[in-house]
Amino acid sequence: MAFAPHRSKRADGLVVLGGGSRGRPPGDVWLVGAGPGDPDLLTLKALRVLQTAQVVVHDGLVSDEILALAPAEARRISVAKRKSRHSYSQDEINRMLVAFAGDGLTVVRLKGGDPFIFGRGGEELEACRQAGIACQIVPGVTAALAASAGAGAPLTHRGSAQAVTFVTGHAAQGREPDLDWASLARANHTVVVYMGLSQAAPIAARLMAAGRDAATPALIVENASRADERRVVTTLAGLAEAAQTLSGPALLIVGEAMALADAGAPDLAAIIKEARA
Amino acid sequence: MAFAPHRSKRADGLVVLGGGSRGRPPGDVWLVGAGPGDPDLLTLKALRVLQTAQVVVHDGLVSDEILALAPAEARRISVAKRKSRHSYSQDEINRMLVAFAGDGLTVVRLKGGDPFIFGRGGEELEACRQAGIACQIVPGVTAALAASAGAGAPLTHRGSAQAVTFVTGHAAQGREPDLDWASLARANHTVVVYMGLSQAAPIAARLMAAGRDAATPALIVENASRADERRVVTTLAGLAEAAQTLSGPALLIVGEAMALADAGAPDLAAIIKEARA
Repeated sequence: MAFAPHRSKRADGLVVLGGGSRGRPPGDVWLVGAGPGDPDLLTLKALRVLQTAQVVVHDGLVSDEILALAPAEARRISVAKRKSRHSYSQDEINRMLVAFAGDGLTVVRLKGGDPFIFGRGGEELEACRQAGIACQIVPGVTAALAASAGAGAPLTHRGSAQAVTFVTGHAAQGREPDLDWASLARANHTVVVYMGLSQAAPIAARLMAAGRDAATPALIVENASRADERRVVTTLAGLAEAAQTLSGPALLIVGEAMALADAGAPDLAAIIKEARA
Repeated sequence: MAFAPHRSKRADGLVVLGGGSRGRPPGDVWLVGAGPGDPDLLTLKALRVLQTAQVVVHDGLVSDEILALAPAEARRISVAKRKSRHSYSQDEINRMLVAFAGDGLTVVRLKGGDPFIFGRGGEELEACRQAGIACQIVPGVTAALAASAGAGAPLTHRGSAQAVTFVTGHAAQGREPDLDWASLARANHTVVVYMGLSQAAPIAARLMAAGRDAATPALIVENASRADERRVVTTLAGLAEAAQTLSGPALLIVGEAMALADAGAPDLAAIIKEARA
């Protein structure tokens, strides 16, 4: 299979992609959530769909162990958004998906976590719909669920967390994220910030300025569910300083229920059990 | 294995549970997310842990197909919270988990969705910790992710959903849910209401009174990911009436990004593909 997806350039300069003009019926696109990192947290469906892939278009956050589950002959294309010399724009990724499917191929777009939680899956789905390409979505375990499971700190909890909100800390270069601080500052509410590590200081400052108690328990989880997962248990007041000790992809979680968080190694429970046996 | 968990009654009338007093080392408790219903949406880890269970304590929402994946000899105990003649209190469930683990058994507490999103997993974890029982959590695909995947409507979306909040519509008998309506009413924000079907009318009214546009797209998904999944695409203004057409466990999802929702049958994409082939 050639790298360049099937395309034709029209007289008006518009590049037309896909459409089965080679006489093949169109393929399809699967937007698949690969979960938080641990291959064991793939769903059975994600595994099954991945095993049918002819092309796998994946993020940098998807591990080699997971990519190895696709057929050996499937083409793997990294559109890494992380620490990569080259990364594709969302528009380029959209066009790539449509083009490969237009060539009659089964395309798996493999994303860390869930495709529809800060995964930009909606944009890829829209591109497929506009091109008349069948597109199906396989949900995945989003990182917040794995982070809270690993730490033993529930995102909702009777009496201390009646709601949970997911936001992104990602912001344009040199800017602070533009969030509704007053809403996020309300008590008895868990706030999960995806991609928030580099913005921990302004996020914590804004939450406190909007009235969130500085003593609110907080948790940072780096590489949730992976072998190199690291956790820091802190408070809202300590969040900025704690964030400086980490550097990988991380979630910030702020909320009263984080008081239950366990900073220990993920295998603490096993250690206790072994010691007792 | 006898039904009654190991227990002894002290002179002061307090029932003491667990503790390995039969000379066995204590077992452990796994709080496992079974996902939204489709057995294919179990994680590999959930399946693996379920296959080691000696006791499975499960909600009514966990399907027979999933329960069948536990070893045949494992004891299955329903603590059904749904349409059941008897349901156990949370305190009774907590005591049951601790008691079985105290008897040296591997106990799997199997919950619909994710244990830490409106699953009361935090309470069960605390009970285990207090009893000195090792407790580990396996995250699962929470229903909101499956509902949005099935409908093709992302929970976050560039330009129309910068955040997503999960709340519960469950409320004490005869009462309205006590939620922060002003926060939920802000635009460009997806609100997912778990267990909200019976409260759809007051929820919609409160959101509109707090300023959410009546024309905001809304989606109701009943039995997300199951063979009998049903979807209704509506608006905030139409939510109450639409809710009357459904009766099963359902999510209400309100937000601008629900404009992308597809009301069609879950296999619409496959039908399109077949028609084109």
